[in-house]
Amino acid sequence: MHRTKVRVVEDALDANNTIARANRDDFDRHDVKVVNLMSAPGAGKTTLLERTLAQPLGEVRVGVLEGDVQGSFDADRLATLHVPVTQLNTDSGFGGECHLDANMVRSALPSLPLDEIDLLVIENVGNLVCPAEFRVGEDVRAMICSVTEGEDKPLKYPLMFRTCELVVVNKIDLLPHLDFDLDKFIYHLDQVNPGVKRFQVSARTGEGVEAWREWLLTVMARERAFA
Amino acid sequence: MHRTKVRVVEDALDANNTIARANRDDFDRHDVKVVNLMSAPGAGKTTLLERTLAQPLGEVRVGVLEGDVQGSFDADRLATLHVPVTQLNTDSGFGGECHLDANMVRSALPSLPLDEIDLLVIENVGNLVCPAEFRVGEDVRAMICSVTEGEDKPLKYPLMFRTCELVVVNKIDLLPHLDFDLDKFIYHLDQVNPGVKRFQVSARTGEGVEAWREWLLTVMARERAFA
Repeated sequence: MHRTKVRVVEDALDANNTIARANRDDFDRHDVKVVNLMSAPGAGKTTLLERTLAQPLGEVRVGVLEGDVQGSFDADRLATLHVPVTQLNTDSGFGGECHLDANMVRSALPSLPLDEIDLLVIENVGNLVCPAEFRVGEDVRAMICSVTEGEDKPLKYPLMFRTCELVVVNKIDLLPHLDFDLDKFIYHLDQVNPGVKRFQVSARTGEGVEAWREWLLTVMARERAFA
Repeated sequence: MHRTKVRVVEDALDANNTIARANRDDFDRHDVKVVNLMSAPGAGKTTLLERTLAQPLGEVRVGVLEGDVQGSFDADRLATLHVPVTQLNTDSGFGGECHLDANMVRSALPSLPLDEIDLLVIENVGNLVCPAEFRVGEDVRAMICSVTEGEDKPLKYPLMFRTCELVVVNKIDLLPHLDFDLDKFIYHLDQVNPGVKRFQVSARTGEGVEAWREWLLTVMARERAFA
């Protein structure tokens, strides 16, 4: 019975990867780079995007796809930033899923102004488990981990930390008020994804955000993933 | 296609409820009350349990079932507390699920010392979406929301906040250092679950924890859920 279950999961992931590749082809055709941004609930994805997009990102035209179970609270927060924001809800025909998958993102493609943007940031549903299992056609995966979540998170959610090529350590303005041991967190991070690029930021104060913005520019300079 | 998907989900939840009822019968047979404790990753479930169980809970013999995707980090943290702790991993035959379901808890029953405890606290996987969808045979559901997660969480994850009869608002020691508006959070909470019981605590300093401990004692005094 367990074997059957695993088989079903594998089939679902195969189908997901096929659709992710189709998304990837569409993004490439429009010359759009895509970042899949993931984190636990409340780690600061939207606040980081607010801070990131408050000023132009060089010449790069940015768009955002907001993934949420329901509502448009994050999209509403970004509405003042003069970037195109598209809301994608997983409870609209997708059963209230706890993650985005390639098919959901595909359903949003007609609503995305792909000819008018160069970079699409997909803000995934807040969750450290399932989003890591589903590629959606992105060039690159980044995650945010807040220092309020504790040093053990890389060990407890290793797939998420392993699948990302950038870990943004957020809310460092709170470090003086926490028992959080940053060295211990880094040690755990290197256990599951040795040497992975990491930035320390405070999306609230802006500290470190410029390094993240520059990293986004390096994503723009990359060759296509499937070129 | 969407209709088919929803149908499958409904069938899965029906099957889950059947097994949850069987778990419930077993808990009742052993006269054990069960709390299903849920939260986002890093909200402080384990820290609250450490604080809660550091001293005896009256005459109540407490046991803990630790749900994690993998590893036994939380169970190890609780190991010094002289309460029986059982680890349940969702990646051991369960596909690395992002939540506990009734069948997983059922598989743990033979490892639980049901004759030696009066209260079982099930620490669910850190996730604000799927754990709310799966009953596991509990008497009562409680959740922890950390003030570092932002005021919008009840609106963004309404099923979780609606399905619990207690919301523990944790990390209030950090309030002076955050922009978090507690009144706004309470307003949002009452929008999705009007009047739901709530405690403000700091698991780190111990503030407010006694009210939560007393609440656990009131759970012990209840009639059986399916009496």
